[in-house]
Amino acid sequence: MNVGTTHYRSIWPIGDDAVGIIDQTRLPHAFATQTLHGSADVLAAIKTMTVRGAPLIGVAGAYGLALAMREDASDANLTMAHERLGAARPTAVNLRWALDRMHAALAPLPLAQRAPAAWLEAARIADEDVALNESIGRHAADLLRAMHADVKRTLQVLTHCNAGWLATVDYGTALSGIYQAHDAGVPLHVWVDETRPRNQGLLTAWELAAHGVPHTLIVDSAGGHMMQRGDVDLVLVGADRVSARGDVANKIGTYMKALAARDNDLPFYVAVPSPTIDWLLRDGMNVPIEERSVDEVSRFTGIAADGAVATLRVVDHGTAVANPAFDITPARLVTGIITERGIAAPADLAALFPESRRAT
Amino acid sequence: MNVGTTHYRSIWPIGDDAVGIIDQTRLPHAFATQTLHGSADVLAAIKTMTVRGAPLIGVAGAYGLALAMREDASDANLTMAHERLGAARPTAVNLRWALDRMHAALAPLPLAQRAPAAWLEAARIADEDVALNESIGRHAADLLRAMHADVKRTLQVLTHCNAGWLATVDYGTALSGIYQAHDAGVPLHVWVDETRPRNQGLLTAWELAAHGVPHTLIVDSAGGHMMQRGDVDLVLVGADRVSARGDVANKIGTYMKALAARDNDLPFYVAVPSPTIDWLLRDGMNVPIEERSVDEVSRFTGIAADGAVATLRVVDHGTAVANPAFDITPARLVTGIITERGIAAPADLAALFPESRRAT
Repeated sequence: MNVGTTHYRSIWPIGDDAVGIIDQTRLPHAFATQTLHGSADVLAAIKTMTVRGAPLIGVAGAYGLALAMREDASDANLTMAHERLGAARPTAVNLRWALDRMHAALAPLPLAQRAPAAWLEAARIADEDVALNESIGRHAADLLRAMHADVKRTLQVLTHCNAGWLATVDYGTALSGIYQAHDAGVPLHVWVDETRPRNQGLLTAWELAAHGVPHTLIVDSAGGHMMQRGDVDLVLVGADRVSARGDVANKIGTYMKALAARDNDLPFYVAVPSPTIDWLLRDGMNVPIEERSVDEVSRFTGIAADGAVATLRVVDHGTAVANPAFDITPARLVTGIITERGIAAPADLAALFPESRRAT
Repeated sequence: MNVGTTHYRSIWPIGDDAVGIIDQTRLPHAFATQTLHGSADVLAAIKTMTVRGAPLIGVAGAYGLALAMREDASDANLTMAHERLGAARPTAVNLRWALDRMHAALAPLPLAQRAPAAWLEAARIADEDVALNESIGRHAADLLRAMHADVKRTLQVLTHCNAGWLATVDYGTALSGIYQAHDAGVPLHVWVDETRPRNQGLLTAWELAAHGVPHTLIVDSAGGHMMQRGDVDLVLVGADRVSARGDVANKIGTYMKALAARDNDLPFYVAVPSPTIDWLLRDGMNVPIEERSVDEVSRFTGIAADGAVATLRVVDHGTAVANPAFDITPARLVTGIITERGIAAPADLAALFPESRRAT
């Protein structure tokens, strides 16, 4: 996607021993890039959510493992880097998927070939992510076009968190279809959930503004009311992990949006590339839910009157805070899962991926 | 309730021509009181949410009308003050209820008697609010005690917004029962929703901390997950208006908490004094929903590193924001309404108040 007049991916190789990223902790207040010079830098960027979004942290993990191979291509380091990077964030399955794929490709190779092979494999995963998301967007845009033909007015989409190009290598998952439908002339308006505590809704608003898609920011609590009053036609989100039967682990609060959609007879769609599907897990309630720092809730960052970026504490030190980062939307609340191969009801997801049977 | 060692109500008369209030826009970062010297001050305090909470703005409105009578006891001013104060905030019915009661008491009186009579009537409404909330708390505490006897461990309550003593004259509505149950030795823990955009959850946390009730702050999106994982036994909230059939207008986000409670087979209770019940309105979807300033979403206030209170902007000026302040929880999702006369399912609410039939 373009930032100003420059085309960016959210992650890119620099030579063969460093990776460039956009510092997502500084958006939308500042656009800044960072260069990650080693696997430890990548690990820190994933943990601090300097890079974030299930598909993107998968690719970042792959580059992290590739940098680890440049540091030490031994079996011991391959195992250690695979484990450390994999433990950086527990909920999104893409990270484990990408690391497993890297491990499987590298383990049989002689040590001297591992670093260059890893670099190529990480680039391949990144390129594939772009292609998958472009395909997801085509299927989603077809859906949005058909829904617009039905309602015959601006189509109202509600989304939660950021499932845009920033969360992937490019295009996005949920937003890919919105971009493609908008570009094809389908009139759309997006309700953007703020997405406390980290306010990734501001990333979504920043992306949509850059692309010219009309949108309005609301607090996370407002979605149910917007649906009650008839101002939402569908909910469209991404996911961090989809179980084999179609349960959806996504940003905390997604579950209640799905409940509200169901209560108002509105469709609830989840857009994911197949690496987000965990064929080994049937029951989504078994997805590990990351508990993140209380500081994410108790502090806020914004712009002061003098234009400087500043952080304030809003919650007393003495106040206990819990900060679970994800929840599970059961398959029964999901209308359809939009993948690179098309849209399937949860019960039909496995049929879209017949090769998944080998895994289960 | 006590602040430090001093007993406070949230509003109090000063002599016979001014009213003291706690500035709730500065809590929890600073405890400060204000003196309102005339009806315009009261109107401003209600609009800016310097005083807030359905029962409290009812009492504040009554005092505002009393101050207006001191300024000009004419019929014209009685009508004008009644209208202006009544339009200050549209959703909570207590404001209109209190103003109607004041108007009915004052209109028949000779002009010279209106100001002193108004002062007494406002004080009566305030005292009644305290008594109503104390009774609500007794019924709610009985419920909590019985639920604790059933679960035989610390009872987990989830609440949204602030329905504590700050939202009333004293005791609170939803929190009244929590205080009384806690004082009676029932082990309780309260999940406190942050309640964006104005973060009234911080008021609730401040109240609960002062009273020694264990609690944990969570973002508004987290409640559904807490219920899914079995960490909530009941949801207990206040309301701004309850329709005759038991639909509940309350702080934005309440509806999705009720949906999550239903999806997890958990009881959802609403604690209200009878002046919050609008017997003239059957369908809660007809309650006017206040749309408040976008600045509530785009700015926030907290404590800087140097200890000073500061405000930052988090949303760009160019980003559209919508800020509906309330939503409607349909009666079908409400387990019981806790009133000063006891607890009733929505369908049985009118039977608790047989005199309501005269109104409908």
